[in-house]
Amino acid sequence: MFEVAEVGNRISKAEFKEKVPALRIGLLQAQQALSKSDFPVLILISGVDGAGKGDTLNLLNEWMDPRYLRAFAFGAPSDEERERPEYWRFWRSLPPKGSIGLYVGSWYSDPIAQHVREEISEAELDCRLHRVKSFERTLVDDGALIIKFWLHLSRDDQKQRLKALEQSEETAWRVTEQDRKHLKLYDRFRSIAERALRETSTGEAPWIIVEGADARYRNLTVGQHILERINKRLALAEQKPNPSVDPSPHDPIVPRANTLLGSLDLGKSLTKKHYKAELDKYQARLGRLAREAHHRKLSSLLVFEGWDAAGKGGIIRRIVPAMDARSYQVIPIAAPTDEERAHHYLWRFWRHVPRAGNTVIYDRSWYGRVLVERVEGFANHDQWMRAFAEINDFEEQLTESDILLLKFWIHIDKDEQLARFEARRQVPWKQHKITEEDYRNREQWAAYEHAVVDMVERTSTEYAPWTLVEGNDKRHARITALRTFCDRLESALAKPK
Amino acid sequence: MFEVAEVGNRISKAEFKEKVPALRIGLLQAQQALSKSDFPVLILISGVDGAGKGDTLNLLNEWMDPRYLRAFAFGAPSDEERERPEYWRFWRSLPPKGSIGLYVGSWYSDPIAQHVREEISEAELDCRLHRVKSFERTLVDDGALIIKFWLHLSRDDQKQRLKALEQSEETAWRVTEQDRKHLKLYDRFRSIAERALRETSTGEAPWIIVEGADARYRNLTVGQHILERINKRLALAEQKPNPSVDPSPHDPIVPRANTLLGSLDLGKSLTKKHYKAELDKYQARLGRLAREAHHRKLSSLLVFEGWDAAGKGGIIRRIVPAMDARSYQVIPIAAPTDEERAHHYLWRFWRHVPRAGNTVIYDRSWYGRVLVERVEGFANHDQWMRAFAEINDFEEQLTESDILLLKFWIHIDKDEQLARFEARRQVPWKQHKITEEDYRNREQWAAYEHAVVDMVERTSTEYAPWTLVEGNDKRHARITALRTFCDRLESALAKPK
Repeated sequence: MFEVAEVGNRISKAEFKEKVPALRIGLLQAQQALSKSDFPVLILISGVDGAGKGDTLNLLNEWMDPRYLRAFAFGAPSDEERERPEYWRFWRSLPPKGSIGLYVGSWYSDPIAQHVREEISEAELDCRLHRVKSFERTLVDDGALIIKFWLHLSRDDQKQRLKALEQSEETAWRVTEQDRKHLKLYDRFRSIAERALRETSTGEAPWIIVEGADARYRNLTVGQHILERINKRLALAEQKPNPSVDPSPHDPIVPRANTLLGSLDLGKSLTKKHYKAELDKYQARLGRLAREAHHRKLSSLLVFEGWDAAGKGGIIRRIVPAMDARSYQVIPIAAPTDEERAHHYLWRFWRHVPRAGNTVIYDRSWYGRVLVERVEGFANHDQWMRAFAEINDFEEQLTESDILLLKFWIHIDKDEQLARFEARRQVPWKQHKITEEDYRNREQWAAYEHAVVDMVERTSTEYAPWTLVEGNDKRHARITALRTFCDRLESALAKPK
Repeated sequence: MFEVAEVGNRISKAEFKEKVPALRIGLLQAQQALSKSDFPVLILISGVDGAGKGDTLNLLNEWMDPRYLRAFAFGAPSDEERERPEYWRFWRSLPPKGSIGLYVGSWYSDPIAQHVREEISEAELDCRLHRVKSFERTLVDDGALIIKFWLHLSRDDQKQRLKALEQSEETAWRVTEQDRKHLKLYDRFRSIAERALRETSTGEAPWIIVEGADARYRNLTVGQHILERINKRLALAEQKPNPSVDPSPHDPIVPRANTLLGSLDLGKSLTKKHYKAELDKYQARLGRLAREAHHRKLSSLLVFEGWDAAGKGGIIRRIVPAMDARSYQVIPIAAPTDEERAHHYLWRFWRHVPRAGNTVIYDRSWYGRVLVERVEGFANHDQWMRAFAEINDFEEQLTESDILLLKFWIHIDKDEQLARFEARRQVPWKQHKITEEDYRNREQWAAYEHAVVDMVERTSTEYAPWTLVEGNDKRHARITALRTFCDRLESALAKPK
């Protein structure tokens, strides 16, 4: 695979000088057009040590407008990063739509380096590469353009290059201990890189292997390829101005005779007295468990979904008093801010992943994608269909980094909802919670129910199952949620970390 | 001062039970009204250890809607926080307009505790309290409502309270080693706290001392006071719907015979050949210095202000190639995002304060407040007048935490600007930079010049002086900026850290 980049490609100084001015103007114009479009560009500069990654990165910064570029390296993670899933730092560094992120060192660096150093097995490498692919796929599906360069050097070239760098006082600092170690491991590194590239050279984000020995050839090739890819993507975007409003394929609602929701016994209830006793009991238990979880740096993430007026807020208000206010945050999901809209829809949820030992409670969540956005047509068929896999991947990452994830669907029936709407209208300080839209939404009940059943079926994973809560009786619902949280916390704490 | 809170205030269970329901409804209604208004609320719960800060915080969370509250503690700073000025963590935790931040532990905790432990002198304590006052003043001036509670206990009450906490298994964890130490230092702590409160009990953010011994009295008092203050502020906001559009006091432009700008020799220039040589020289020098700065974790922050078409972008593009793209970020200041608009105008600049060893370059900056916002009337007289002090305070904090701060005003004359506008219109890929507005702005030249002179006069501090750059000759301007950056970096690196 790398042989194609060992043929001795060179470009003369004269040719370079002749070609660069047009390239620079092209890049600046492309950046300008990009700034008005609705997709981000990620450019990865990876490759063999000494192949000129830093040089190429810096030259790109010089050629383009540095105000609409951002370069990222990713050295040792900060403690705020270490306490979250591995990809949190990548999500937080994603460029917003219309701009460019340049990556030297990326989600590829650790998996490859760790396997080279034999810290992870081949099977683990495969898992990690699988994650890489999902990540890139998720971004590309959302419109991102990912351009991945692998700068290659033959073994001899690498040796010479490092030697040359070491000999000049200006550049000796660039050669690290790790570079020297990697040189010794050239053959191993090469074959592992080859494997990684083959695995991750997908149709939507292929690798471009560039011979690194000649700086002019390398830089011109990289620059020209970037220009070509961005322009192609811009032209495509012009043809289909907004792929998100593509007509959705027909989404027929096939009535199911028996659904999970239908099998819930909404008649379940608790007497006031029993409720009081249970509430005290579980709040005290949760208090103890939450304290231990905080102490042992176990984070929890609770998701509450349910019909309008299902009582999500009331449940949340029964849970939080058992915890220390300094250790939790409740996040109500409303319309995204413009910074959030400029990113993938999951970005706003990645933002709030808690530091170790803390709890985040979502009042509505990323499931809006497959519920309201699906039913109301804000997301098209492709978007909400692929959201199931994207969400499962996100949740897998959360649970893998030892975050306890609980998902509740609070279920009530249509009559109960109407009764609650009417009741709310009678209470002066609850009236604002009820709008005409709430009544309109009721007309879509069957479509919503269908979406809920799909959601539960497709996202009830072993690591993040749904808890369906019978909600017609508020007392029963509150105790069920509290007890479930207690039980899950307790078993998570029982596991050795 | 604290004697008022040692009188044995108590509230019976019956009275508490009677009063709480109305208080809760009131608080929820106030929160709802707040969510539609344009100011944030900061509630500080401070005081003696064991006086019930955590209890009160948790109860407030229970009484109010936890979705529009956020509680903050501030334990040991993370490494991302440690590498920035002390107040970075407070700025990043400020509630957006329309919401409430609850603080147990705040900007008061460290100064008081450190002086109690004799780690800082009385003079240093005064300095720190001065900073506290500036910070609060800045927020209040922007509309924030700050409510500060000091929960007090007499020496005997504190002793008893800690003992009671220690005896129960449920609460023993709350008593820390530090609490026990503080008890021994009760008298010292009390007199220092008294001093701190006196110093910082300002008209706009007074302290409320609350007797902490009786939980019901304490919690009811705190809750009622919060309700009263928020409602009062809401009523005030209704009277003056938007203080930011108050008619500005007359701001006459008094022509000055001689100004700093007038004394610049715009005839200064460099030949192309000389420029080439100087550029190479200073870029190489900057490359060395920037590398050392990165290595030694010295951060730099460069601000570029200047007339439209003054050549700020061109200068920035000559500076960045000397640095490693992974260590700097260029931030062009355009319209704020909605998250930025929901905060104090300085919030968006605090966001970008770099981690240790990195460089941030602003293409326009916080000085917009006293330039375009002043001249165009987007900020009223009070707002831009107080901005000078706010900016000086911000910059003082940056430089105190060893960030090298450089501010450049790139000066050109009116004729040169016109020539550049016309030239830009001839270049296809620069045309977008020129709009009708740019021409219109020229009519305000005198007003802008006046604002620039004021700005330079009022914000040229010892720690952050302005560098005025003669910009009619682009070559001269670029070399001047490069040389200045080199010189400042070199002397900063020469200083022992």
